[in-house]
Amino acid sequence: MKRIIKSVTLSVLLTTQTFAISLIDEAKKSGLIAIPAENKVLNKLISNPNNYMNQAKLTLGMMLYFDPRLSKSGLISCNTCHNLGLGGSDGMSASVGDKWTIHPKHLNSPTVYNAVFYTRQSWDGRNPDLEDQAHGPIQAKPVMASSKEYITTFINSIPEYVDRFHKAYGSTGEIPFEQVGHAIAAFERTLVTPSRYDDFLNGNIKALTQTEQKGLKTFIDKGCVSCHNGIALGGTMQPFGLLTPYKHIEAGSFRGDKNGMVRVPTLRNITETAPYFHNGKIEVLPEAIKEMGRIQLGIELSDDETNQIEIFLKSLEGKKPSIVYPALPASTKKTPKISP
Amino acid sequence: MKRIIKSVTLSVLLTTQTFAISLIDEAKKSGLIAIPAENKVLNKLISNPNNYMNQAKLTLGMMLYFDPRLSKSGLISCNTCHNLGLGGSDGMSASVGDKWTIHPKHLNSPTVYNAVFYTRQSWDGRNPDLEDQAHGPIQAKPVMASSKEYITTFINSIPEYVDRFHKAYGSTGEIPFEQVGHAIAAFERTLVTPSRYDDFLNGNIKALTQTEQKGLKTFIDKGCVSCHNGIALGGTMQPFGLLTPYKHIEAGSFRGDKNGMVRVPTLRNITETAPYFHNGKIEVLPEAIKEMGRIQLGIELSDDETNQIEIFLKSLEGKKPSIVYPALPASTKKTPKISP
Repeated sequence: MKRIIKSVTLSVLLTTQTFAISLIDEAKKSGLIAIPAENKVLNKLISNPNNYMNQAKLTLGMMLYFDPRLSKSGLISCNTCHNLGLGGSDGMSASVGDKWTIHPKHLNSPTVYNAVFYTRQSWDGRNPDLEDQAHGPIQAKPVMASSKEYITTFINSIPEYVDRFHKAYGSTGEIPFEQVGHAIAAFERTLVTPSRYDDFLNGNIKALTQTEQKGLKTFIDKGCVSCHNGIALGGTMQPFGLLTPYKHIEAGSFRGDKNGMVRVPTLRNITETAPYFHNGKIEVLPEAIKEMGRIQLGIELSDDETNQIEIFLKSLEGKKPSIVYPALPASTKKTPKISP
Repeated sequence: MKRIIKSVTLSVLLTTQTFAISLIDEAKKSGLIAIPAENKVLNKLISNPNNYMNQAKLTLGMMLYFDPRLSKSGLISCNTCHNLGLGGSDGMSASVGDKWTIHPKHLNSPTVYNAVFYTRQSWDGRNPDLEDQAHGPIQAKPVMASSKEYITTFINSIPEYVDRFHKAYGSTGEIPFEQVGHAIAAFERTLVTPSRYDDFLNGNIKALTQTEQKGLKTFIDKGCVSCHNGIALGGTMQPFGLLTPYKHIEAGSFRGDKNGMVRVPTLRNITETAPYFHNGKIEVLPEAIKEMGRIQLGIELSDDETNQIEIFLKSLEGKKPSIVYPALPASTKKTPKISP
């Protein structure tokens, strides 16, 4: 009797192992990629040859990321809409900017976590990289409402900032506008959140529960992976709502880029960044999953399949980098007055 | 010759020492008090017997302090107006609140750092302590625009928050509104910033330069210390603009409490919290110092005296507690919708 139980247990164990190993293989073949476990490999992956990293630049970028004085009002920082405490987003359907302006296209703030792995930035993919993106909201009138002139005057009016830029860039003299976005982007490049899912893809078959593995299998089998792939499980430009139109398409004027293509959002930490879709019109994850199946894959996902996928998505909750809230250098007499 | 030089040096040294030692004595007699160097003494001083501290409560309070979802819009946290990276204030003349409302009385956001040492909270001293104060802005329509009902629904909709409250208070069941402000206040009580000035008062006569010591002497001799005393160098209720009216009194409707008394702001970190006065109408420190002399002491401070006092005030820049930016628990289906 004991021997039979042992043998059954062993056989279940083997089946479980075989399933996990073949699932990892299938996941990789489907285009899913883990965040590298080795720091050296990861660091190479997240760096931009045109924006070399050093500790001075990272610290500076982090300070700028949290500094609301980059906005004309002095009230809005990068962290306002891409709140590192709220999954890198703001929990609103559409972001609120300068003078309490709801985003004119009713766009939902995308998370900054793992955005480094995207091939294009912004919902319409207009920015090739984080460096380019960082300059947009700072100057956009409905967001931070600053200008190149304001930002350069601001930075150059604060000796500590000037000094930090000189150290970060090995430069002297006046700080140019471009370096501000570059420093912010350097910091953003480090906002990577490895999860149990990565451990699993990296070979630790116990890192995901069997239920989560089943969810991953469904995620692959149903075709979600055709857009949500790569390290970010997203980040490329894809056609949107081709098979069936998105049920809330009328909310806001966003229709993608000139070809109707939309940048696929990452699924990492998706449980922390409701509401969903570019206009934030879907509030809960099961509804978002079903809607995606309907409009992108032309299928009706059952409650059971939806639940499986949701359980898998929860395993993508990652470990956030630890950030000590920065003491920002005080404004000086030369600092331009902020005007709410 | 050598002996003479030695003897002169020794005599200068002795004079310097004597000056410093007698200055410390004078400062203490004038009512100036150092932040205690001993943690045990400090901890006793900052604690509230009705709001006992423990690590669980401090962490929870810190999370709530940074959580913008305590506001109706989901956009404004305690840290928005009392930004721990900006000297505990917001750098604006008057704060901006819900729906971009400039504070109706055009009040300047007071720093939260060292507010634990105040005898009364808020410009008109209406709150006896930080616990009482913390509930005000959360509910005030022009600030965070929440309500007791909203806050309790919000907290009780997020299992991680409920769990953290239970651990902090050793309680079970639903979280009452009062505990929210209490937890925030417990965290705020720890926002103490010891400086070189404290080292000096605590007996290290080299902690302040001779110029800074001279500034402290002028600060005492001119009478600034008659209101700016205690640990906070401020924090009590005092008559305002009695001798000469404040030159910007017309800006905003604030005229103090029912007796015209105003809560004296701390001078700690004052170099980081421009603009100055209750309505933020004075932008630079020398002007603020001179205006204070004029309206509170009835004297015209010379440029030299003003400069000495400013140099002393700079020595009050303190070491801020290191705070790891918190990961906030995600909203759930039960969390009330935020509405910007």
